[in-house]
Amino acid sequence: MNKVVASIITIGDEILIGQVIDTNSAWMGQELNKNGIWVSHRVAVGDNRTDILEALDEASRRASIILITGGLGPTADDITKPLLLEYFGGKMVVDEKALANVKWIFERLKRPMIDRNLQQAEVPDSCTVIQNRRGTAPGMWFEKEGRIFVSMPGVPHEMQGMITDDVLPALRRHFRLPYIAHRTLLTFGIGESFLAEHIKTFEEALPGSIKLAYLPNYGMVRLRLTIRGEDPVPMEALLQQQFDTLKGLVTEWMVAGEDITIQEAIGRLLKAGGHTLGTAESCTGGYIAHLITSIPGSSNYYKGSVVSYANEVKMQMLGVKPDTLAQHGAVSEETVREMVKGALAGLDTDFAIATSGIMGPDGGTPEKPVGTAWVAVGNRQNILTQKFSFRFDRQRNIELTATNALNLLRKFILSATPAPLPA
Amino acid sequence: MNKVVASIITIGDEILIGQVIDTNSAWMGQELNKNGIWVSHRVAVGDNRTDILEALDEASRRASIILITGGLGPTADDITKPLLLEYFGGKMVVDEKALANVKWIFERLKRPMIDRNLQQAEVPDSCTVIQNRRGTAPGMWFEKEGRIFVSMPGVPHEMQGMITDDVLPALRRHFRLPYIAHRTLLTFGIGESFLAEHIKTFEEALPGSIKLAYLPNYGMVRLRLTIRGEDPVPMEALLQQQFDTLKGLVTEWMVAGEDITIQEAIGRLLKAGGHTLGTAESCTGGYIAHLITSIPGSSNYYKGSVVSYANEVKMQMLGVKPDTLAQHGAVSEETVREMVKGALAGLDTDFAIATSGIMGPDGGTPEKPVGTAWVAVGNRQNILTQKFSFRFDRQRNIELTATNALNLLRKFILSATPAPLPA
Repeated sequence: MNKVVASIITIGDEILIGQVIDTNSAWMGQELNKNGIWVSHRVAVGDNRTDILEALDEASRRASIILITGGLGPTADDITKPLLLEYFGGKMVVDEKALANVKWIFERLKRPMIDRNLQQAEVPDSCTVIQNRRGTAPGMWFEKEGRIFVSMPGVPHEMQGMITDDVLPALRRHFRLPYIAHRTLLTFGIGESFLAEHIKTFEEALPGSIKLAYLPNYGMVRLRLTIRGEDPVPMEALLQQQFDTLKGLVTEWMVAGEDITIQEAIGRLLKAGGHTLGTAESCTGGYIAHLITSIPGSSNYYKGSVVSYANEVKMQMLGVKPDTLAQHGAVSEETVREMVKGALAGLDTDFAIATSGIMGPDGGTPEKPVGTAWVAVGNRQNILTQKFSFRFDRQRNIELTATNALNLLRKFILSATPAPLPA
Repeated sequence: MNKVVASIITIGDEILIGQVIDTNSAWMGQELNKNGIWVSHRVAVGDNRTDILEALDEASRRASIILITGGLGPTADDITKPLLLEYFGGKMVVDEKALANVKWIFERLKRPMIDRNLQQAEVPDSCTVIQNRRGTAPGMWFEKEGRIFVSMPGVPHEMQGMITDDVLPALRRHFRLPYIAHRTLLTFGIGESFLAEHIKTFEEALPGSIKLAYLPNYGMVRLRLTIRGEDPVPMEALLQQQFDTLKGLVTEWMVAGEDITIQEAIGRLLKAGGHTLGTAESCTGGYIAHLITSIPGSSNYYKGSVVSYANEVKMQMLGVKPDTLAQHGAVSEETVREMVKGALAGLDTDFAIATSGIMGPDGGTPEKPVGTAWVAVGNRQNILTQKFSFRFDRQRNIELTATNALNLLRKFILSATPAPLPA
C-alpha cells in the first residue's frame, strides 16, 4: 500500500504577521493522522498571487491531498477564490445551495445582507461544492492530475465541520488508507532527556512498525507509540503489548495511561471516589478553575473557587488570619494552609487546592523572587504543601503553578484514598 | 531599498501530527514584522532528512533570512543538528561556553547530567554560536551564499530570548531595513463584512504606502494600518492622519484605539477611575478571572472572584436566594442579578460581573439550549443584564461569554462614570 501524503496550505497575511496563531493546521494534522494520512508539509503564504500559485504547484508535487484554509472571507484582502478559478479553470457561478445558506444565516441573525455576503455563494464551476453548515463561505473540492485539492474557510469551527462531515468521508472513499493506531501516556515531573535515558533499551528494541514520540509540555511529557500497517488485529495486539511494557517502565511518573490532560485525570479520580473539589486561588487567578471547568461534566465533582487576589478576600471569604498575613506574608506556607482550610469549609468540599505566589514581572523581593509559589492541597484530615521556584514569564509561571498544583492534588488523592484500579 | 524577506522553517513530527500548536511562528512573524522584515513563507516539515534539506534549499531561494526552530532536543527523534553539519559543512565541535551553560543549569537544578545533555553543547564549527540563557540547546547562526540561517530550539521562551537578545540585533546590523509602522484598533460587536462595507470608501482612498488588514477573533475585529517606506517623520504623520480618520469612522464599536486586549482596556478604565472589580462566575468557571489576572498589575484593581459552579456556593458565598434558584433556575436574569449583588458585597468592589449559562455539550433544555448565557454587570446603583445565545462548542461558548461580559462591563463603566478622555 502506498503511503497517502497530505500537505496543508494556510493562506493569509495575518498568519505570517503573527496576528493569528494557526491552530487549524494542528487540528487538521491530528485528524488526518488518525485516519492514516501522513502530513508531510505545512506551508503558510500571504495574500499574494505568486506565492499562492507556487504553493499549489509545490504541494501537488509532494502530496496527493492538498488542504487549503483561509483567504475566503468577505473582505478585500482575500484573493484566494479568483486564484483557484485561474488555477483549476472554469467560470465563476452562483451555487444555489450555498446562496440559500447565506440567506438563511442572515435571516436567522436578523441582519441585512450586502453584496459581499452574496458573493460568498459564488464558486468556480470546476469544483464540487462542500456546503458550510456553520458559516457563509462554502468549501470547494477540486481534482487535478490525480490530486485532491480542498479549499475551506479559515474560521476554525467552520473548517472543522467540513473536514469531519464531508472531507474525511470523501477521502476515505477515494484512497485506500493504511491502518494506524496510537497509544499515549502522560508523565509528570521527569524531563524529556531523563525519560529517554530511562527507556533507551525499550526504545531501541521496538519493532520497526512502531515509532515512539516524546511530546513535552509544561513539566509534562506525553509518550506516544504509533503503529502503521495493514492488519488491525495483530497490530493492535503488538501495540498493546509494547504499550504495557512502556507503562511498567514509567509507573513512577505516569499521570494517565491514555491521551488525556492532568485535569481530566483528576476528574476521573474524583468521580471514581465520589469526591468533590474546591480551589482557593491567589496567584493562579482562576486558571486552575478554568482548567477544571473546561472539562465537560466537571460540575459533578467541582464546586467552585474563591479567587482571592486581594488579601481582604483571603481574610473575609477564606478566613485567613490577619496575623498570618502580617507575620508570614500572602506568599507563605502558613497562608496557603489556611486558604485550603477556608476552601474546604466555605465551599464544603472533600478536597481543596490553594495557591499563592509572585508571578511577575513585578512584585519580587530578594527572599521571594518572581516565580516563587506556595501550593497546598488537602482534605479535612491532612494538608500537603510544596514550594516552587519558577523562573519564567508571567503566563508560564501561572501555567506551571497550576499544573504542579493539580499534580500535587493527584498524588494527595492517591495517597489519601484506597488506590483505584488503573483506567 | 530592497525588501528584506524571511522564511520560517519549523521542524518536528509533533507539529505535523498536530500534537503541538505552533505558536513560535506567530511570535517570530510579529517580531520580524515590527523590524521591517517581511515573512513570505512559513513551512513545517517532519524529522525527515529529505524534507529538511529541501526546505532549506527552497527557503534560500525565496528569502535572505531563514529562521529554523525545533529538532534540537536531547532525544533520539531529533536529527536537525547532524543535517545542519551536512548542509553547511565543517565538523562537530564542543562549544565551551555552551558546555559551561549546560553544566551550570544542571548544577542549579541539582540534577545528574547524562551524555545526551553534554551532547547539546556540540555544534558545527561552521556556525557562530548563540548562547541559550534559558535552556541547554545553543542556537546556531550560519551564512551561506549571502543568506543568513539561524537554528534555534523549539521551546518558546528559549527561542524568544535568542531572537530578542541576539538574532534581531545581529539582523539589524547585517541588513538595511525599511521603516515600518502600524496602528491598530480593536472593535467589538460588528462583523468583518459590515466593517468592510462601512469603511469601504476610506479603504479605497488609502494612499499606496498604507495597507489595511482585518483581524477577526471571537466577536472582535482588529483593524490594522501598516505603512512601509524610508522616511519616518512624514510616514508617521501620514499614518496617524489616516488612523485618526479611521477611528472617527468606527467610534461606535471601538473598544481600544491601540493593539490591546479587551481585558487590558478594562484595566485601564478601572485604574483611571480608581475603581475596583470583582467577578462571580458560574458558566465561565474562572476564565474571566484568568483573563483579567493575566495582565501584570491587575492586582491594583481586581480583588477576586467567586467561581460558584455549584448552587450551594451561589447561595452560601454570594447570597443568591434559594427561592430565586428554585423559581427561575441558575441560568436566569434573576440569578445573575443576585450574583452581582453578592460579589459587590462579598468582595467589596465598585463593579462586578456575573455569568451563568449552559456551555455544553450536555445540560441544554428546549427553553435553555446549550449556548444560553446570562450576564450581569453593575455597581451599587445599577445592574445591567444581557442574555446571549451562542451555538458553538464548550470552549468557544466559554470564551464568547467571557469576552461579551467584559464588553458589557466596559460599556457599563463608560456610562456610569464621567467619560475619560480617549487614550
